Amino acid sequence: MTSWVSSANGDTDFPIENLPYGVFDDGAGPRMGVAIGAFVLDVGKIKHGLDPALFAEPTWNAVMAAGPTVWAELRERLTALLSDETHRAAVEPHLVPLEKVALLMPFRVSEYTDFYAGRHHAFNVGTMFRGAENALPPNWLSIPIGYNGRASSVVVSGTPVRRPWGQIKRPEDELPRFAPSARFDIELEMAAIVGQPSDGMVSVAEADAMIFGYVMLNDWSARDIQAWEYQPLGPFQAKATATTISPWIVPKAALEPFRVSTPTRERELLPYLQEPGPMLYDIALSVALAPEGKPETVIARTNYREMYYSAAQQLAHHTTSGCPMRVGDLLGSGTISGPEKENRGSMLELSWGGKEPLTLETGEIRQFLEDGDTVILRGAAVGNGYRIGFGEARGTILPALKLQD
Amino acid sequence: MTSWVSSANGDTDFPIENLPYGVFDDGAGPRMGVAIGAFVLDVGKIKHGLDPALFAEPTWNAVMAAGPTVWAELRERLTALLSDETHRAAVEPHLVPLEKVALLMPFRVSEYTDFYAGRHHAFNVGTMFRGAENALPPNWLSIPIGYNGRASSVVVSGTPVRRPWGQIKRPEDELPRFAPSARFDIELEMAAIVGQPSDGMVSVAEADAMIFGYVMLNDWSARDIQAWEYQPLGPFQAKATATTISPWIVPKAALEPFRVSTPTRERELLPYLQEPGPMLYDIALSVALAPEGKPETVIARTNYREMYYSAAQQLAHHTTSGCPMRVGDLLGSGTISGPEKENRGSMLELSWGGKEPLTLETGEIRQFLEDGDTVILRGAAVGNGYRIGFGEARGTILPALKLQD
Repeated sequence: MTSWVSSANGDTDFPIENLPYGVFDDGAGPRMGVAIGAFVLDVGKIKHGLDPALFAEPTWNAVMAAGPTVWAELRERLTALLSDETHRAAVEPHLVPLEKVALLMPFRVSEYTDFYAGRHHAFNVGTMFRGAENALPPNWLSIPIGYNGRASSVVVSGTPVRRPWGQIKRPEDELPRFAPSARFDIELEMAAIVGQPSDGMVSVAEADAMIFGYVMLNDWSARDIQAWEYQPLGPFQAKATATTISPWIVPKAALEPFRVSTPTRERELLPYLQEPGPMLYDIALSVALAPEGKPETVIARTNYREMYYSAAQQLAHHTTSGCPMRVGDLLGSGTISGPEKENRGSMLELSWGGKEPLTLETGEIRQFLEDGDTVILRGAAVGNGYRIGFGEARGTILPALKLQD
Repeated sequence: MTSWVSSANGDTDFPIENLPYGVFDDGAGPRMGVAIGAFVLDVGKIKHGLDPALFAEPTWNAVMAAGPTVWAELRERLTALLSDETHRAAVEPHLVPLEKVALLMPFRVSEYTDFYAGRHHAFNVGTMFRGAENALPPNWLSIPIGYNGRASSVVVSGTPVRRPWGQIKRPEDELPRFAPSARFDIELEMAAIVGQPSDGMVSVAEADAMIFGYVMLNDWSARDIQAWEYQPLGPFQAKATATTISPWIVPKAALEPFRVSTPTRERELLPYLQEPGPMLYDIALSVALAPEGKPETVIARTNYREMYYSAAQQLAHHTTSGCPMRVGDLLGSGTISGPEKENRGSMLELSWGGKEPLTLETGEIRQFLEDGDTVILRGAAVGNGYRIGFGEARGTILPALKLQD
């Protein structure tokens, strides 16, 4: 399919098949937008035929709450408006060049849950901490392990990230010190956005239907803070500095052609977790790192299909206790690594706990992140002659604050 | 001090010195209320002299967001209106008998964090799982250990609690089953409500100033689900069924006369956690259990002053990573146990993991909760001739849902 927006038809993250949802500001205040080629469509200004109340606030929560029928209607209408030349005169005045806008948080995060569903990541991290024989925790092949994160710390791509302070006890220390993190890291993840609420247990199929769309997610992690704090109740301040998401919610509908199955099970899943169909997606992902003032080096390439559990499985598991889910809940997939060294989605794995430092193309050496480093996640589902792009999830490390005595 | 509301002057949780904040519905819709004696004051209807927008929605979030000056003005005004007989004619028509109202959630919970700051509880649980020598985790005397809970699961007193399903692996099982929890438990806690936001690290003194008030909290916990799921990332579905809070936010100002210091430190705290003054409170607490259709038995009595860390210390620690705090954040203290067996704030401790069942006054035996059981938390700071009561945090266990095959 082609669009009358010519930049949507070539080498772009945002062809007519994508139509992702974001919030932008061109200087005239934040509004809801849809990306198409090199432009963002000011969607509240066009004749979309839907309830204007859905576009009253600069966030996609109201559209999500309106439910799957509205999601389908909106997407159908946008596709018609942007592909059919007869609508061009009415719509074109409401296209704003992407290069002239700031992209803001596309939705209000209700709560944020982060999972640990990457087989390679769990094995790598477990091997470092417990040895290869005991790498996977006993529950890992049965449960999509997750923990509650901190919604207030979720930020949109481009927001600088301040190196955190925290309690740190190095192996050579007897007692902890309060110091800036020296092992500040990334985690390459995808995340599902819950678009419909639930009250009580839902099946995997119902969970899949509740998902509105997907973004990329970087779960910034202070490994030294985490190592000292995480027993017995899990990561807390190590993961609370910031979590960066990409600015465009790619609709689940745009990803339909890219569905793939989760891998063969090493242990049969309990029935409530078994999938009635393919619920992962073939999405190529990369991580680039640019030291301050230097060009970037791609340090990892992997694919969302490497995950052991899908977002639908994670969401179904999330409801087993009766936990109510709400519109705007954000579910991080867990770090996405692949089988090879170059597929690892964290610096902890890439530098093997700091023991095997990375050398960037510009010559810099890295174990973990340095002040001034910029990390950029990129991702796309690559179709026949087009790609469903996620844009970027980018963040630059600011030095830790100086504390007063 | 006395009130012209005569029921506020005798044996009551709600004397003029308390004036806690709640939300009630007498059949005419939910409104903000203040408890006084046997009544709730329909506070939006009186001449309070404050911005009416603060009372536009049936929740205390707007008042919290307005800040400490408004908190003090409102409390001063309410005290004058309810103590000075000259206001009686204007105010009395807006008193609604407590027995005629339903009490609703007093505020919108932004995010919920639960701590593990009770020395006796941590020691008891650690002893059961790891033996007395290794009972306290190495970080426990340095960090107010906490984890993010699930805000959507917080409910007000009186809401029934459905026994959850979950993955359970008993010691004799090789693999987990999906089954209703057989070890469903309570946790007696206090909780602080964050009334002012922060962006970046705050001191313990600043944290104390951010707290709007306190409630009682019962962190319902499925011990069998928790045992299988909690390694390595902490409790998740075990704690997501429900968390019950008492319906009245007791203002921090009402608790000022009851401030006490945290206990002597066994290990010196890092400077950022040291308290400039007493920040715990002397609040007597009890847990009662009533089997279905039977009278209740008090199964535990303890005091909030038993905690090792105050809410102000917990909140200061919460911000160390730069984690933004928001109006309406709820911070559970952790289970409050005392030194003796009768002071234990969970059935896990009271029945020592089920090995020493409790016998209720009505003859029933309990290791954990049975369907139909009602649990009631009660608490009060007891002053000279009056008490600052918290009301009740009550919940009744409904049987697990029957699942379709």
